[in-house]
Amino acid sequence: MHVELLTIGDELCRGEIVNTNGAWMAAKLWDMQISVDHIVTCGDLEPEMTAALRNAAKRSDLVLVCGGLGPTVDDLTVDVVSKVAGLRAVEHKPSAKRMKVRFTELGIPLIGDVMRQVRHPEGSTVYENPVGAAPSFEICLDNAVVICLPGPPREMKSIFTTHLEARIAQLRAASGQEVECVAKKIFRVFGKGESVIAAAMEGLQLGQGASLHYQVVFPEVLVKVVVRDKDEYLARDQLDRVSKDVRIRLDGAIYGEDDTSMAQAVGDLLRQRGETIATAESCTGGMIGGKLTDAPGSSEYYLGGAVTYSNAEKTRQCGVEELVLETHGAVSQEVVIAMAEGIRERVGSSWAVSVSGIAGPGGGSDDRPVGTVWVAVAGPDGKTTSKKYSWPGDRDRVRLLACNWALNAVRRRIIEEETI
Amino acid sequence: MHVELLTIGDELCRGEIVNTNGAWMAAKLWDMQISVDHIVTCGDLEPEMTAALRNAAKRSDLVLVCGGLGPTVDDLTVDVVSKVAGLRAVEHKPSAKRMKVRFTELGIPLIGDVMRQVRHPEGSTVYENPVGAAPSFEICLDNAVVICLPGPPREMKSIFTTHLEARIAQLRAASGQEVECVAKKIFRVFGKGESVIAAAMEGLQLGQGASLHYQVVFPEVLVKVVVRDKDEYLARDQLDRVSKDVRIRLDGAIYGEDDTSMAQAVGDLLRQRGETIATAESCTGGMIGGKLTDAPGSSEYYLGGAVTYSNAEKTRQCGVEELVLETHGAVSQEVVIAMAEGIRERVGSSWAVSVSGIAGPGGGSDDRPVGTVWVAVAGPDGKTTSKKYSWPGDRDRVRLLACNWALNAVRRRIIEEETI
Repeated sequence: MHVELLTIGDELCRGEIVNTNGAWMAAKLWDMQISVDHIVTCGDLEPEMTAALRNAAKRSDLVLVCGGLGPTVDDLTVDVVSKVAGLRAVEHKPSAKRMKVRFTELGIPLIGDVMRQVRHPEGSTVYENPVGAAPSFEICLDNAVVICLPGPPREMKSIFTTHLEARIAQLRAASGQEVECVAKKIFRVFGKGESVIAAAMEGLQLGQGASLHYQVVFPEVLVKVVVRDKDEYLARDQLDRVSKDVRIRLDGAIYGEDDTSMAQAVGDLLRQRGETIATAESCTGGMIGGKLTDAPGSSEYYLGGAVTYSNAEKTRQCGVEELVLETHGAVSQEVVIAMAEGIRERVGSSWAVSVSGIAGPGGGSDDRPVGTVWVAVAGPDGKTTSKKYSWPGDRDRVRLLACNWALNAVRRRIIEEETI
Repeated sequence: MHVELLTIGDELCRGEIVNTNGAWMAAKLWDMQISVDHIVTCGDLEPEMTAALRNAAKRSDLVLVCGGLGPTVDDLTVDVVSKVAGLRAVEHKPSAKRMKVRFTELGIPLIGDVMRQVRHPEGSTVYENPVGAAPSFEICLDNAVVICLPGPPREMKSIFTTHLEARIAQLRAASGQEVECVAKKIFRVFGKGESVIAAAMEGLQLGQGASLHYQVVFPEVLVKVVVRDKDEYLARDQLDRVSKDVRIRLDGAIYGEDDTSMAQAVGDLLRQRGETIATAESCTGGMIGGKLTDAPGSSEYYLGGAVTYSNAEKTRQCGVEELVLETHGAVSQEVVIAMAEGIRERVGSSWAVSVSGIAGPGGGSDDRPVGTVWVAVAGPDGKTTSKKYSWPGDRDRVRLLACNWALNAVRRRIIEEETI
């Protein structure tokens, strides 16, 4: 089945909003094993909308049109679709009635063009809008099924889940598309680039119906294994076999699976061991604590810590000696080790991680350029390990990398893969 | 000038990622007074890519193709563009050389298909990639200029600003398009919804060539005033007049203009006054410190603070008495005030802000449901003000709102608009 999404709106073409509706519908369809061939966006202009609609209907079995169903005169979807299909645009009585009742309840006057949004092409199948005024409707055009939905995400999603999922499943069945069982797993890889990962995968025996995909979500790479088979058991079995090989090939670079974040992976390890952690952050300013507490239940293992943005706070909160700061500078192995050990002792946690670096754009020097970051991990074994990193890039990037490498350092210390 | 964006990638068609590249390029072009007619997305498949490219070239003067230039075999843009244009895909020597040097420096082996990403259609104009391996290139197809860019946002943006802005301005001039002067201002509004803002704008005298746009970027609303005029002076003058009225109508709800973030607005106020701030965070876990240090030079006013995720840390770091914690609970006015006053005294800052709340999904009770958050601000005048908030929504939403309302409370205290 060939499917196309047509998203309409000047604000999309001006880049004022990102096309989250397109992504949401595409993901829903992908979950239903329906591939979207094209996602097309055009502005609220009749010629562009007409051309895009004609083109989509010609090459697709199903077209989902989203947007342009509002009350203002620049909302043209009903007009364009009706014209192209040779139908009259008429008021949809039940929707008009519901809207009038709702507006009266809310004390909103029915003025101007407000009734425009309850129109539909005469004779089209209407899907009522559970959370808004504009109804959704379906027509047939060039043998394609065309279904129009309003643009506000809440309304679009509500109509999609209430009415369209079942309708689209019906169309998929009618098209003769066999629905296979899908087994999939996402491996989250940190610290290796896409090309290095791809090279490590060379010669991997995927077998029939299985595929491998890479996606860079900076600073990580996702490696996805997808297996399709008519038999659910066989699909899972093959996924397990391929996954095992992927795990061996990527070794310690896989920090988690599916939706797990790096902070969550660290949290899970700590929870399993009944251990706790504290943080002492300089250039990251609290971001590591923020990430560790993204996960519900993080109070089980995260106790808190210090944000020591000034040198005085490094001394006050972590006990870093002033002489050490003067002699070695705030961005140094000596200071970052003292921060980790100081905060671990004060908080009384099993582990502590500390970060001190130069995020830029100012503050760099010849021997410590912008992007220099020291990370230390103090552990329950009494050992403190540390490492210096140096990254190109802007402030946001350096800080993001600092968070992730710091958390990864904790992870690797915990699983004893290396000394950071 | 007719412009089309073609964004390529299976992950876009599967809804795994949202098309932020398309929105970014469209916004850049809109700033250059160039309207984008269509944004088209297709997967990494030769037939779809070929059809989309042919279609775009036929109806446009300029096509920007983004994605599919990576090192793996499913990156097909160079192959498809070369084939459609009847050119050979060849290695771009300077890019290949730079990549080899860079990979050697980083100790990454040049294995597998890694050199695929430095190819281009023979004879095309190459724009070097300042921050990555894959170069950008330009060819002519059906009288359209087609420029291909790599998909990683950082690389795409770097190439766009370094090379393409000037090139596109040149194409626009050659097309004979008259460029009007555009004066615009974005007001960033916090604490008022879109419909309340729209109601406050009723009867606003915009005048000819001026327009008003709203954009919700949760948890804020952006109000944009755009004035176009052939005369730059007149455009600016009209913008000033309209802006003055907008400012009066929205009063203290405008926290900043253009790209200023809430944390930056607070930082600017502190810097102007030569004052400093410290943070004591519970449910936000360090996020407020993270936001305050997003801005370069934030060490001028942000000294640091405490992440007190456990009760013990609230006592140790802020001096909150154990009896107060036991009697009133961690999420209480008494505790949040003690946190703010305690951290202010210990850090020795002019201001301090503290947050304690229940972000959920667990931890709620009948009298303190999930979404209950206390915020306190202690100031140099010796006064500490506090407020309880209660929001619906999930953990991420509650934490984001807590950060923004806390920073907004500091802002309003500093400008003495209210006692929070």
